[in-house]
Amino acid sequence: MQTIEKSTQIKSDRPLVIAGKTFKSRLMTGTGKYRTIEEMQQSIIASGCEIVTVAVRRVQTKAPGHEGLAEALDWTKIWMLPNTAGCQTAEDAIRVARLGREMAKLLGQEDNNFVKLEVIPDTKYLLPDPIGTLQAAEQLVKEGFAVLPYINADPLLAKRLEDVGCVTVMPLGSPIGSGQGINNAANIQIIIDNANVPVVVDAGIGAPSEAAQAMEMGADALLINSAIALAQNPVAMARAMGLAAEAGRLAYEAGRIPVKTYASASSPLTGTITN
Amino acid sequence: MQTIEKSTQIKSDRPLVIAGKTFKSRLMTGTGKYRTIEEMQQSIIASGCEIVTVAVRRVQTKAPGHEGLAEALDWTKIWMLPNTAGCQTAEDAIRVARLGREMAKLLGQEDNNFVKLEVIPDTKYLLPDPIGTLQAAEQLVKEGFAVLPYINADPLLAKRLEDVGCVTVMPLGSPIGSGQGINNAANIQIIIDNANVPVVVDAGIGAPSEAAQAMEMGADALLINSAIALAQNPVAMARAMGLAAEAGRLAYEAGRIPVKTYASASSPLTGTITN
Amino acid sequence: MQTIEKSTQIKSDRPLVIAGKTFKSRLMTGTGKYRTIEEMQQSIIASGCEIVTVAVRRVQTKAPGHEGLAEALDWTKIWMLPNTAGCQTAEDAIRVARLGREMAKLLGQEDNNFVKLEVIPDTKYLLPDPIGTLQAAEQLVKEGFAVLPYINADPLLAKRLEDVGCVTVMPLGSPIGSGQGINNAANIQIIIDNANVPVVVDAGIGAPSEAAQAMEMGADALLINSAIALAQNPVAMARAMGLAAEAGRLAYEAGRIPVKTYASASSPLTGTITN
Amino acid sequence: MQTIEKSTQIKSDRPLVIAGKTFKSRLMTGTGKYRTIEEMQQSIIASGCEIVTVAVRRVQTKAPGHEGLAEALDWTKIWMLPNTAGCQTAEDAIRVARLGREMAKLLGQEDNNFVKLEVIPDTKYLLPDPIGTLQAAEQLVKEGFAVLPYINADPLLAKRLEDVGCVTVMPLGSPIGSGQGINNAANIQIIIDNANVPVVVDAGIGAPSEAAQAMEMGADALLINSAIALAQNPVAMARAMGLAAEAGRLAYEAGRIPVKTYASASSPLTGTITN
Repeated sequence: MQTIEKSTQIKSDRPLVIAGKTFKSRLMTGTGKYRTIEEMQQSIIASGCEIVTVAVRRVQTKAPGHEGLAEALDWTKIWMLPNTAGCQTAEDAIRVARLGREMAKLLGQEDNNFVKLEVIPDTKYLLPDPIGTLQAAEQLVKEGFAVLPYINADPLLAKRLEDVGCVTVMPLGSPIGSGQGINNAANIQIIIDNANVPVVVDAGIGAPSEAAQAMEMGADALLINSAIALAQNPVAMARAMGLAAEAGRLAYEAGRIPVKTYASASSPLTGTITN
Repeated sequence: MQTIEKSTQIKSDRPLVIAGKTFKSRLMTGTGKYRTIEEMQQSIIASGCEIVTVAVRRVQTKAPGHEGLAEALDWTKIWMLPNTAGCQTAEDAIRVARLGREMAKLLGQEDNNFVKLEVIPDTKYLLPDPIGTLQAAEQLVKEGFAVLPYINADPLLAKRLEDVGCVTVMPLGSPIGSGQGINNAANIQIIIDNANVPVVVDAGIGAPSEAAQAMEMGADALLINSAIALAQNPVAMARAMGLAAEAGRLAYEAGRIPVKTYASASSPLTGTITN
Repeated sequence: MQTIEKSTQIKSDRPLVIAGKTFKSRLMTGTGKYRTIEEMQQSIIASGCEIVTVAVRRVQTKAPGHEGLAEALDWTKIWMLPNTAGCQTAEDAIRVARLGREMAKLLGQEDNNFVKLEVIPDTKYLLPDPIGTLQAAEQLVKEGFAVLPYINADPLLAKRLEDVGCVTVMPLGSPIGSGQGINNAANIQIIIDNANVPVVVDAGIGAPSEAAQAMEMGADALLINSAIALAQNPVAMARAMGLAAEAGRLAYEAGRIPVKTYASASSPLTGTITN
Repeated sequence: MQTIEKSTQIKSDRPLVIAGKTFKSRLMTGTGKYRTIEEMQQSIIASGCEIVTVAVRRVQTKAPGHEGLAEALDWTKIWMLPNTAGCQTAEDAIRVARLGREMAKLLGQEDNNFVKLEVIPDTKYLLPDPIGTLQAAEQLVKEGFAVLPYINADPLLAKRLEDVGCVTVMPLGSPIGSGQGINNAANIQIIIDNANVPVVVDAGIGAPSEAAQAMEMGADALLINSAIALAQNPVAMARAMGLAAEAGRLAYEAGRIPVKTYASASSPLTGTITN
């Protein structure tokens, strides 16, 4: 009889690869909104994530809690994903992306050319501008960035961004921090089914069930921040999100049962085991 | 800085207690529908479950794959939950429940008085009969059984069953084996909010996201069989369901963020860390 | 060319028949919760309904606004459906049903033996007791009543009630007055697909879209009260609900398009008209 | 007592105004996909619509059933909305829009400068290109067109299109002809809440309930073609959609009840009528 120890090693055998770089975890998190630096540190560890996004402008402006970011996380294990949060135009985002590259170098990640591109003129819903995002993406790709654009779940825009050389697309589930979950599932499914780059569902996820749902649809990864940082117990929620991302991915690879109209007995009186 | 090893020990600290018996895992599985006994064995181990339900009539009729059930699982670690699948009336279910108690003794579980009560006259949807279920439950409680009744998600019926002494209620998410997920979430939520016994969501779950959803709602446990046994890779799906049950429970205890109409910046330019 | 006048006569050609009595409208309403008697009168007219339910105990206790109920509506055109609201047990409901029959006679409806059976011990969700409802239904059928039982959407209970001679079943969409809509669509669909008596979706409908949804599923009729009476403009909402019930029924009979995964051009460049 | 005749005159008192032109009906339909010209004629009449969209390229290429379009409908009562279906680029759409204006003149609508702008490079989902749509819209507005762009439900794109002078925005519910309904409700709600031009929900609606849902959300109008033309009985479905659009609008103006967690008795034993 097989032992429990062996079985717990069941894992997805297809890693996440972005811009040639391989990651074991499919959950990305952030550093914003935590109540204390300690909670942030422990939550990031509990999540099992290997990519953490950082708002460049926040570091730049020395926002509270950011003086010690270099020391707070172990940047030999965590890959930094600089983001352009707070940028309302393509120009602004391009400028901040360049600062992000410098920031990565200061943290010892010399070869880190990643940028999470956010062009967000709207302050109420924090929804991204498709035109400005495409413009900035084109420029940043030319400058050698690995661009991960944050977008509304628009399959044609996703395809355009892929065509100009973005290394992922990051469609939103629902507005940032809203916890509404995956409001655009049908469009995200179309994006996933047609993408040649990894699809990262970003923003809006409020609970592990929603994280798992996105992964079961075939999303390659998730980015979750508010739902962890603002949970009553962020560390436990971080762990829950990490487990859910893994569960959803495993299920995607395992091949779920079809949905049927009628029932099918779990305990049929005539057996199904044939040998 | 905290190490990754320590963080992975985050676990729910409130165990599942049914009829005075304590379980660490909140996922129950079954033995039906697997393609081979080996897949069943490995899946049950991978799921991490501690309770496995067995159709008494199937063993009784020596259905294929059931001659070796006593040897197939380690009954010193797995608690057997005999079920009355295949019973269409209260009388039939009562009779089969008694046989189940004998079966438990043969497996060395002398004190096992559990029975998963199913009274299912309908063969198309396999939905339970509320009247027959209540009648059988009353009788079986009188006979000293710990009764876990399988029911439609009817809050008043759940309360009636609790009142006659059932040790859990097991509302269905959707028809057995249908993989439709949680079709009755609103009613299940009412049952959870008002129950004084553990609520086990049983039947219909097709994916880990749905398992997590039920646990996030506050369900105390899940019973999942078809979605594991009939997945293309049952062992991986079993592991995924185990992770999802844990993730959902952790999230329930961790306290999720509220759902908001508008966005809330993950990376605010003014900080929220106050010390 | 056909005129607009002719086209507006498109109507469902299969009327609603309950206990041998034929109704053109498939929307039933109530008299409770209105702000004024005038609003009630106008709303009932605007809805186009032919059946109005009245709480017998409310009339009995001379609750405010009920002294004039006999005069408020034209009982030669409106069929009264006495209901047993406020009854917590089968016994109480049986007693009130008998009073309802007397009330109908006083309104000039000598042959009216209808009763909407409500057995509701729960005051928070106002959900019905399946056991008490079945008991009362059996007795009332024996006494010659045409029984329309209000039930949780439990297909097996619905079948039991049909078997004892109820003339409809009235599954709830969601708790009375909650406006949550059709929370139990899957179960209601099973009830509809298997019923040999009309299925009336009762309670919880908050908007015309939900009224139409129930009718598209094949429900035979609807009962809507709170969503009309408590709307800001009850008369307009009553009209809206009447239109929605008609639209949903027409669509059910018209045969909707199948749901498809992919698109299908509305304006194909090659034609589909073949003659 | 008010008569039934009077009550049936309850109607929305705020008409739909697009580019200064007033319409009583809020349902737009099309001419494609019908099995016969007679069905098309009768369906358009039954729907009560005043705006009918026509694929310019289809007329241009003399697709089957289009030789008689000028005579098939009463263009003194129906406002033609030429569309650019079949155009994959901004340039192509601009060219076809100009042809559409000529077509309107030939039908006697000298002042008709409307164009439903579709830029659709994708043939599988028929989803619109946001970049090409914006480019074409800018040019067509400059040329004096009243532009009604078909778009993915992207609030920022909708705002951009409004800013360049479009007279409506037409977000899609789901892919054309798919009958999936309103997949992007959250985004469409944001568009509605922030638009200064009418919002027309276009594509994907399969049933009256979905038509009503969009109107209840506050959409100003609907465009429905496939769900009518391809129904088993298109004329009845057209009528159903017309009723649903009216019901949804009435309900939006009437002010629906709030959704509540708990129940609220329809037939309270203590009255609410205060006078």
